[in-house]
Amino acid sequence: MIRELVDLNCDMGEGFGQWVLGEAPEQEIMSLISSANIAAGFHAGDPNSMDRVIKLAKEYGVGLGAHPGYRDLQGFGRRYIKMGSDELVNDIVYQIGAIREFGRRHGISLQHVKPHGALYMEAAVNEELSQMIIDMLAKTSGETILFCMETSKTYELAKQHGLPVVREFFADRDYDNSGAIVFKRQVGRPDPEAIAAKCLKACKTGKVTTVEGAEMEIGFESICFHSDTPGALEIGKAIRSALLNAGISIASASTVLAQSK
Amino acid sequence: MIRELVDLNCDMGEGFGQWVLGEAPEQEIMSLISSANIAAGFHAGDPNSMDRVIKLAKEYGVGLGAHPGYRDLQGFGRRYIKMGSDELVNDIVYQIGAIREFGRRHGISLQHVKPHGALYMEAAVNEELSQMIIDMLAKTSGETILFCMETSKTYELAKQHGLPVVREFFADRDYDNSGAIVFKRQVGRPDPEAIAAKCLKACKTGKVTTVEGAEMEIGFESICFHSDTPGALEIGKAIRSALLNAGISIASASTVLAQSK
Amino acid sequence: MIRELVDLNCDMGEGFGQWVLGEAPEQEIMSLISSANIAAGFHAGDPNSMDRVIKLAKEYGVGLGAHPGYRDLQGFGRRYIKMGSDELVNDIVYQIGAIREFGRRHGISLQHVKPHGALYMEAAVNEELSQMIIDMLAKTSGETILFCMETSKTYELAKQHGLPVVREFFADRDYDNSGAIVFKRQVGRPDPEAIAAKCLKACKTGKVTTVEGAEMEIGFESICFHSDTPGALEIGKAIRSALLNAGISIASASTVLAQSK
Amino acid sequence: MIRELVDLNCDMGEGFGQWVLGEAPEQEIMSLISSANIAAGFHAGDPNSMDRVIKLAKEYGVGLGAHPGYRDLQGFGRRYIKMGSDELVNDIVYQIGAIREFGRRHGISLQHVKPHGALYMEAAVNEELSQMIIDMLAKTSGETILFCMETSKTYELAKQHGLPVVREFFADRDYDNSGAIVFKRQVGRPDPEAIAAKCLKACKTGKVTTVEGAEMEIGFESICFHSDTPGALEIGKAIRSALLNAGISIASASTVLAQSK
Repeated sequence: MIRELVDLNCDMGEGFGQWVLGEAPEQEIMSLISSANIAAGFHAGDPNSMDRVIKLAKEYGVGLGAHPGYRDLQGFGRRYIKMGSDELVNDIVYQIGAIREFGRRHGISLQHVKPHGALYMEAAVNEELSQMIIDMLAKTSGETILFCMETSKTYELAKQHGLPVVREFFADRDYDNSGAIVFKRQVGRPDPEAIAAKCLKACKTGKVTTVEGAEMEIGFESICFHSDTPGALEIGKAIRSALLNAGISIASASTVLAQSK
Repeated sequence: MIRELVDLNCDMGEGFGQWVLGEAPEQEIMSLISSANIAAGFHAGDPNSMDRVIKLAKEYGVGLGAHPGYRDLQGFGRRYIKMGSDELVNDIVYQIGAIREFGRRHGISLQHVKPHGALYMEAAVNEELSQMIIDMLAKTSGETILFCMETSKTYELAKQHGLPVVREFFADRDYDNSGAIVFKRQVGRPDPEAIAAKCLKACKTGKVTTVEGAEMEIGFESICFHSDTPGALEIGKAIRSALLNAGISIASASTVLAQSK
Repeated sequence: MIRELVDLNCDMGEGFGQWVLGEAPEQEIMSLISSANIAAGFHAGDPNSMDRVIKLAKEYGVGLGAHPGYRDLQGFGRRYIKMGSDELVNDIVYQIGAIREFGRRHGISLQHVKPHGALYMEAAVNEELSQMIIDMLAKTSGETILFCMETSKTYELAKQHGLPVVREFFADRDYDNSGAIVFKRQVGRPDPEAIAAKCLKACKTGKVTTVEGAEMEIGFESICFHSDTPGALEIGKAIRSALLNAGISIASASTVLAQSK
Repeated sequence: MIRELVDLNCDMGEGFGQWVLGEAPEQEIMSLISSANIAAGFHAGDPNSMDRVIKLAKEYGVGLGAHPGYRDLQGFGRRYIKMGSDELVNDIVYQIGAIREFGRRHGISLQHVKPHGALYMEAAVNEELSQMIIDMLAKTSGETILFCMETSKTYELAKQHGLPVVREFFADRDYDNSGAIVFKRQVGRPDPEAIAAKCLKACKTGKVTTVEGAEMEIGFESICFHSDTPGALEIGKAIRSALLNAGISIASASTVLAQSK
């Protein structure tokens, strides 16, 4: 058994105004996870959703995370925008502040920051940007955990600078041999049991089967699934059951990190 | 002499992207005032302007204020939007969080909140909204000072609930006999010396001449002028000189309140 | 039989980016209706949805309508914004142009304009605004039909000025004795058959039962249902069947108007 | 003399809400030019500015152009956004429609389309995007002139497909030996007479001196200057005088193209 304790995180509050993303009720998702990444208004989310979801995170004892993205509502933050890293970090500060303030309102402090979509991917390969995010967090909230992929500049630099960092394993995405995530057009609804088995294997053996068929080592402290994946609720339930049945505990990222030391 | 110590506040950072508001350099305005109301992105201001102006506020020792507005970039937050008070308060929380986070980055804590434009005016007459803002601030930051007009529900309720509150005197606006501000289309540039004399008289006698010609009593702890009033820099300088020459000290709203107790 | 020929209209394309509104596939709704009101980007809709839905309108031979709203994505155009009528008309011109241009691309000309949500309601009671919309349409597209309620300034003035105008009957809303629509929080899914029966009765007798229980006369050339009403597809099918089975023809607003002359 | 007839174009209406871009009064700029590129709301411009500036274009007999940009108010459309060419073309259709509709209101038809900023630059090098823009224009408005640089895929493909196309010479920008525009941080105000001399030389000899000091051939039908360049009014006046004094006529792009045939 490689991981006996793992965090389970999910993006939350990714509607806007009256538009809703994902079919699953927020409460039910919240009851399954240990960390929530809350959309902060640039790619999705509005002050009403933030207030509502952060209140839920408090009620369910879920770790509070800011989920900042590119300023791109139409593209859901999935489109790269060419801009200075300093300006991007300002956008991130802005969004973190919003999430932290609603946390303050509901008595829950900020646990982590997880950039969204194209911003997450850009930080993964952009050393300057990763460094600036790390410097900013070191200044504003040294206790805050940065979420990233193991194969990213973000992880490498956060480790170097001693910033709390958590590696994610993507339950509902595939990997290729380079460790990169493979985006493919979803055909039909994914099989919750297959996803759960993949997660369990990763916890037990530290390995994932790539799309090329190889067994690749992967390090992680948190498992991520997406609330807009079709069948998200069943996926979350399947992962949770599989892990708990195998004796693996699910706890917030901060708890997982604390026990890793 | 009614006021020997007064705060001098100004709205700052009210451009957006490459658009600039007002002709005066930010540093020069900042060197004149003791409290700054920073646009928080809904009616004006973007993360880059917030970062820049809040850094300046720290450098110049100016009290940091959030200046939340209606979500209305095109209308500059000067258009009333009919919406629930609970939703408006969520919008305010969001914007306060952003300002507070940049303050955290630059080592300056939030001193005050001053709603902008139509939101300021709506809160003044809307008891439910004022009460909800006060309840929210009491929960998230009981030390934070709320700026408002003397003749407002906001002031009345903040006093009742013991929330720190500061009344403003508008240097570059006229009053009518009801205590309301008279909006008129500006003809030409206002006379800085006349404005300064009006402020000095208000500090000395606690009175202002209304547009109808009456002498009206007005209570205040802070004098406000606007950075987009033509000749704002000269107005700020004239007010500052007139006050200092008359032996009136200028200090941040928190200092003024502390000495009032 | 009061109406042997009626238009059936529905709001379409009211998602934004990846967010979707309503559960029914667009093609299926489009196959049921004779006029489509296309969201034009201010309250909902983006250039991709406009392109897609207007192409569909062409394919299904459905009358093309612009559905301009207040600039209020978060509030879905359901919030009144206090602004000058001249500025509102500029907003409407902008949105009409967008819809007309996609129509030009797909070989379908603009049939009608139907203001959305709070803008529709504001025009209904605001004589200045209705007059300005009518003057603008008279200048830019005298053939374009304006959609409105019978009990509205819009209808009164459009008739006076000889602008083509169509009165709507709201299938999935209730009326009170004043002729106003009653907004109530929906409990459960509305009954498609009951809605269809209401429409059929209105066509046959020209009357609707109000929430107070009275039989009220109502004049209309078009029946409207909303694609975000739960069960919209079943509602549309039920209305269509009931009308056709009773020998009432469904045709685009322009056809209905042409035959009314 | 290479060019005895040339178009003089300028970007117009690039403020937003109460924010203004450039110091020169719009009427004065409009009185100098023969074609205006009107910001269409995505990078700048709002329905009020469009209405006002297009009315001016009609009054001054200036050729009406749509100036579509990336959806990026904060970045003024100067930031590349990675997105599908089909989606970009939809954004362009939307913006063209808006400009055309205000033109319809004021009795002036669309003369040309000039993409703005990063979109102009992206189209210049992106064959797929240029082709899709050309195909769209061929369908919606075959008479409409596309503005571009001589050294661009846009020009190459527009010529191939027989779409009316105009090459621009940038008066207030420098060129390098590759024909690309050199962006440099402006130090001080540019010299209007030097710019005018550069334009005159280009018209007379068809050549421009590059930043490397070479004499490069450049083909163009229109000269562009920017209303936000410091001293834009003086620049426009100087160019106009220099050309007219040398016997070169200034006329709208459509006139220039018609005479080129």
